Amino acid sequence: MTPTELTIGEVRLTPILVADPPLLNTQGVHQPYTPRLIVEVVTEGGVTGLGETYGDTKYLDLARPLADALTGRSVTDLNALPLLAAEVCGDSPAATAAGAVDVGGLRGVQTADKLRLSVLSGFEVACLDAWGKAAGLPVHALLGGKVRDRVDYSAYLFYRWAEHPGGRGEADDWGAAVDPAGVVAQARKLADIYGFGSFKLKGGVFEPKEEIAAVRALAEEFPGRPLRLDPNGAWSVETSLMVAEELRDVLEYLEDPAGTTDRMAQVAARTDIPLATNMCVTTFDEIAEAFTRGAVQVVLSDHHYWGGLRNTRELAAICRTFGVGVSMHSNTHLGISLAAMTHVAATVPNLHHACDSHYPWQTEDVLTERLTFENGAVAVTDTPGLGVELDRDRLAALHRRWLDDDGSHRDRDDAAAMRLADPEWTTPAVPRW
Amino acid sequence: MTPTELTIGEVRLTPILVADPPLLNTQGVHQPYTPRLIVEVVTEGGVTGLGETYGDTKYLDLARPLADALTGRSVTDLNALPLLAAEVCGDSPAATAAGAVDVGGLRGVQTADKLRLSVLSGFEVACLDAWGKAAGLPVHALLGGKVRDRVDYSAYLFYRWAEHPGGRGEADDWGAAVDPAGVVAQARKLADIYGFGSFKLKGGVFEPKEEIAAVRALAEEFPGRPLRLDPNGAWSVETSLMVAEELRDVLEYLEDPAGTTDRMAQVAARTDIPLATNMCVTTFDEIAEAFTRGAVQVVLSDHHYWGGLRNTRELAAICRTFGVGVSMHSNTHLGISLAAMTHVAATVPNLHHACDSHYPWQTEDVLTERLTFENGAVAVTDTPGLGVELDRDRLAALHRRWLDDDGSHRDRDDAAAMRLADPEWTTPAVPRW
Repeated sequence: MTPTELTIGEVRLTPILVADPPLLNTQGVHQPYTPRLIVEVVTEGGVTGLGETYGDTKYLDLARPLADALTGRSVTDLNALPLLAAEVCGDSPAATAAGAVDVGGLRGVQTADKLRLSVLSGFEVACLDAWGKAAGLPVHALLGGKVRDRVDYSAYLFYRWAEHPGGRGEADDWGAAVDPAGVVAQARKLADIYGFGSFKLKGGVFEPKEEIAAVRALAEEFPGRPLRLDPNGAWSVETSLMVAEELRDVLEYLEDPAGTTDRMAQVAARTDIPLATNMCVTTFDEIAEAFTRGAVQVVLSDHHYWGGLRNTRELAAICRTFGVGVSMHSNTHLGISLAAMTHVAATVPNLHHACDSHYPWQTEDVLTERLTFENGAVAVTDTPGLGVELDRDRLAALHRRWLDDDGSHRDRDDAAAMRLADPEWTTPAVPRW
Repeated sequence: MTPTELTIGEVRLTPILVADPPLLNTQGVHQPYTPRLIVEVVTEGGVTGLGETYGDTKYLDLARPLADALTGRSVTDLNALPLLAAEVCGDSPAATAAGAVDVGGLRGVQTADKLRLSVLSGFEVACLDAWGKAAGLPVHALLGGKVRDRVDYSAYLFYRWAEHPGGRGEADDWGAAVDPAGVVAQARKLADIYGFGSFKLKGGVFEPKEEIAAVRALAEEFPGRPLRLDPNGAWSVETSLMVAEELRDVLEYLEDPAGTTDRMAQVAARTDIPLATNMCVTTFDEIAEAFTRGAVQVVLSDHHYWGGLRNTRELAAICRTFGVGVSMHSNTHLGISLAAMTHVAATVPNLHHACDSHYPWQTEDVLTERLTFENGAVAVTDTPGLGVELDRDRLAALHRRWLDDDGSHRDRDDAAAMRLADPEWTTPAVPRW
């Protein structure tokens, strides 16, 4: 291997739309299709590395100049990526619009810096995949090597409808889950198929007492199993404390009960239930206050938010240093990102909680072979790179869907999707309860 | 490159004694010779990687079982090193003796964990050197790539005698420096030879007013240049504040004026002069309290203490996240460690202060070609690995000196060396002034 072989000759960006079930959250419901961006970094040596990140327009706008700027650089030149991204994406409309901190929705704050990092993560993963393939090393080795052979994931339970409003999108046979019995049935099915041993319910959808009842029902069905509830910041401090008290004997942690660091700190001060977050602490800038105030006990890392696998490891080191736990967050994603999550998770010694993953809900993928869960875990591969292979026909088909879309799915909008069922729906003010 | 080529076939450990001038500090004076350990990791592919760390007996005792345990593992398998070290070194007498926290001397606390990390750092650097050579990549690329092409170092000024007591050891022509004029003359000579543009005086040797006068003299000779003073924790809170006030217009930072995090916090609360440390914060366990209390504004990282180059990068990420500055500490070391320091420093975006290095005082080395400073900086090499080559004849000669030693130099003891000049000398209690 010569340095020239690691030089980036071409970067291909392919926006796609992938099917998404009608999963409910506090802001609305998932649309039938959700945008993702597939990144291919092709080296002069002829190796192609794969990455994946958000595909909404504002991410695509940043990805294009960054892709152009990468040509001629080495796939090993990763520390320079943030500076490069700031240079070439600095003046994009999306970055400028996000320049002022916008308290975003389910993904936490949206700053120009965070938008860039989210885009950059797809390129970083693609570079690592290419480097690994060229060097004959798995991505985890490029991160210092795995410390475990399998990474545990948690069943990600959603309140959901049987189908999208009007029967749009792709059908599935999961049926509705809008009450405790439905949630338990979904959990049982996920456990039977994938072997998951811990369960997270996306809450903030129904009144807290109903969601408490659902978690109680899970605790009866799966006694002793770690359970989590995540209302995406929909609750007040008092409601958060009430739920924590009601579920104190069954919760592994309570995730983002209250939507700000200040409210989380107030909750944390009055309960022993650990609080987890992927909304209050989603950037390095948010860490100091949250950790100093003891606002969170577990950070749910997400290599997309944090700017890649290497930053995720740095986040984990910071958490370790401050006695804060680490787990892993997941938005809708495909197998490339699941592979990336698994590689980095395998290298983090202080990952003591099963990771989240939407992957079981994503029936479509761009891989020749889907990743599989056994006993709730993904095996850590030693195949060079990420260990996944692109199915170009599938990629082309999903890109075709993006091209053919009338624009209504190119930017995820859970509230718009909800309005098809409830024309009066607006994104609820928080705290909602 | 196949994975087998990266498998470690042999690890060679060579303790040596290298010449050291009679440099003074608050605990005594450097001995004529100081112990270092040279680590060679040889892969199945026939590549040899170099590392260097402390060579005192307690480090050697830990290094031997770790060297044995490394055989058969990959040079890429770095995240597993701490666990491996804990397993194989856990019961060593040195580790057990250090199990209780011992408030050590110039190197900060000495815990079993820190001892292991100091040993491990030599192996980690050797693994990275071997990996880089095998892959055709410089070590900085394995750390994510350089973000600068040269790393600035600071002139490291010492009060010193012209020769060791009784004329022992190797002679040099630097002469004595025991007053402001001597310090300025030494600084001028270091600046002329190496081009250093900032200056650090090792203090804690004379009464504070004399050291203030020396720094004042430096400020007159080098107006506007960054100056630092480091008494190794010899002062009380009040003395620290007095010195900070006296030198507030010329100091870049004041280094370890008071010897504990608590005292540093008290000083920091009452001065605007940044406080730097390589004594209060030398392990990840010490960070949270120091940062939360605002006790230090700059951490002087040392890849030996912190367990290698990758941990040094994690430390830098933590500092960046908490708004704490980063610079680099140096004990007596040779060119292998200077190369390692330069590679990692090149990758740390938030390294905003020139690094310390004893290297100009080390006239002996084990390299075929010494590293050089130009305009006070070491150029970051793109040569595969560290970019240095072992001179086996020099290594053998310095190892011979270690073998022939009567035991008086195999464990650094600055107080013992001082007693040759002053039989009544004991390590001073702190605060000394």
